[in-house]
Amino acid sequence: MDPRSVFDVSVIRLDGAAATPAEDVLAAEEPLEIQMRTPADAEWTSLSVTMRTPGHDDELAVGFLLGESVVRSRRDIVSVEPWGPLSGELRVRNVVRVALAESARFDARLLRRNFYTTSSCGICGKASLEAIDAMRPPAALGTEVRIAAETLHTLPAKLRATQDVFGCTGGLHAAALFSPAGECVAVREDVGRHNAMDKLTGHALLGEMDLADKVILVSGRASFELVQKALMAGVSVLAAVGAPSSLAVQLAKAFDMTLVGFLRDGRCNIYAGERRIRTS
Amino acid sequence: MDPRSVFDVSVIRLDGAAATPAEDVLAAEEPLEIQMRTPADAEWTSLSVTMRTPGHDDELAVGFLLGESVVRSRRDIVSVEPWGPLSGELRVRNVVRVALAESARFDARLLRRNFYTTSSCGICGKASLEAIDAMRPPAALGTEVRIAAETLHTLPAKLRATQDVFGCTGGLHAAALFSPAGECVAVREDVGRHNAMDKLTGHALLGEMDLADKVILVSGRASFELVQKALMAGVSVLAAVGAPSSLAVQLAKAFDMTLVGFLRDGRCNIYAGERRIRTS
Repeated sequence: MDPRSVFDVSVIRLDGAAATPAEDVLAAEEPLEIQMRTPADAEWTSLSVTMRTPGHDDELAVGFLLGESVVRSRRDIVSVEPWGPLSGELRVRNVVRVALAESARFDARLLRRNFYTTSSCGICGKASLEAIDAMRPPAALGTEVRIAAETLHTLPAKLRATQDVFGCTGGLHAAALFSPAGECVAVREDVGRHNAMDKLTGHALLGEMDLADKVILVSGRASFELVQKALMAGVSVLAAVGAPSSLAVQLAKAFDMTLVGFLRDGRCNIYAGERRIRTS
Repeated sequence: MDPRSVFDVSVIRLDGAAATPAEDVLAAEEPLEIQMRTPADAEWTSLSVTMRTPGHDDELAVGFLLGESVVRSRRDIVSVEPWGPLSGELRVRNVVRVALAESARFDARLLRRNFYTTSSCGICGKASLEAIDAMRPPAALGTEVRIAAETLHTLPAKLRATQDVFGCTGGLHAAALFSPAGECVAVREDVGRHNAMDKLTGHALLGEMDLADKVILVSGRASFELVQKALMAGVSVLAAVGAPSSLAVQLAKAFDMTLVGFLRDGRCNIYAGERRIRTS
C-alpha cells in the first residue's frame, strides 16, 4: 500500500452513547492539477483540477486525456512528470505535466467542459451521446471478447481481496481490469470514482496493454462518465457492483458496449451487449 | 416520486448462469447547464454543466451558487427559471437560469475551477482550505446546536425510509436535513452526491430556512467538496453513512464544524467538533 494514500487521525468512537478515543485511518484526498503542452506550445496549459488520492498521478493524467480523446496510444505522449513542491503532511507533488507528441489531437472544443453543447439540439442526453461520437471511440468494441457468467460472478470477491487501501479506510472507490478468464490484471483506487477509472486506463495505456479483450469492474455505480472512459479506452465489457444511470445505459447501447450492473451475490443485470456474457 | 427522476429499461437478469428477461427502473441522468446573469450583464454566462437527476433543478442551481459563495441569502436572487426545449424521453429542460440581484457577489476568480491556485503555496490541501477561508463562510457555526448520540443513531433509518427513488433504483445518493430532535425536514436525491447536497442547501435557501440549528446526513462518503457545501450553507453538523476523506476532516477542523462518519448500526466516528454530540 502506498503510504501517501492514507492519513492517520484521532477520533472519538461512539458505540450507542458511549464515547471512547480511538485512532482511524482515512483515505488521503489532495488536489491534483493536470497540465499539458503540445510541441507547438511555449507554455503549459492547465486542463483540470481534480480532488484525488495521491499515488499513480501519472496514470491518472494519462487516463484523463485518454477519456477525453486527447491521446489514443503510448506514442501520443512524450513524457509525464510530477511537478511543483512537495506539499502538506503527505509530502506529495500536486501538479502533473504531460508533454504531448505531434500525433496527439488536442482540441479544446472536445474537452468535457464544453462538449455537451456542441450538438444542434442544445444540451441534452442525445447531445452528450453525439459528443462522444465526435470523439471517435476506438473500433475495438467489435472484438468478440466473451466472459462466462460463472466467471463474472467471481470478480467482486477478487476485487475486494485486492483493495488494500479500501480495506483499512472504507473510503475508496476501485476500478479493476480482468482477463475474460477472470484473472485480475490491475486495480486502482481513489476517493473519486472517475479518478480510479482514469488511473486504471492510464496504467493500461502507459503499459501498452491491449484492452479490447479485457473486462473492467468498478466498485460503485456506473455513471455516463465511467462508461465514456471505458469506451474511449477501448474496453467492451464494463461491470459495476452498483446501479447504472439511465444515460450510462443509453451510451453503452449506442456504442455496442456490454454493461452489467448490481453484480453481487451471484446475481446481476445485463443492461446492454448481453452476447458477450456466456450463459447456460 | 418525480416521474422524471426514473427511467424504465428492459434487462437480462442473471442468477448464476440462468438468464431471464426482466424490467428494471434506473435513476435518470441528464446534463444540466447552470447559467447566471447579474444586473450589469447583457448576456447569460454559463457557469457549469453537471450530470444530474432531473427534478429540483432550481434548488440545484441555487445550492451550487451558495456553495461557491456567489449567493448568501434569498435576496441575492431575482429569479430562477428553467430554460431550453423539452428534451429527450423524459421531456425535461436542461438549462436553468439564475438572475442575480445587485447584492450577490459574483467573482469569477472565486469559482471552483480556479480557486485552488490562488494561494501563494501553489496547489495543495492548505491552499484549498485558504480558498474556502477567502469565500468567508457564514459565522453561524458559532451556534451551539447539540444533538444527542441516541438521536444521531436514528437518522440513517429515517433517511432510508424517505428515499423513494433510491428504493426502486438503488442508484441515487441522498442528502437530508434534520432538526436536532431528529425530525427529517427535507431530503434530496441525485446520481451525483454533490448535486444531492446542492439541491438540499438550495431548497433551504429558497425557503429562507435557518440552517444554523440543523444537521445534514449524506448517504455516502464525505469528501472535501461536501464539507465545503455544508460549511458555506451555514450547517454546523455534517454526518455521513460512509467514510470521510483526509481533506474533509481537515476542512471541518479548520472551521470548527462537527463531522461524523461511518454512522450506521448504532455506531459512528466523530472526526471533528465532538462537543456538539451529547454523549452519556
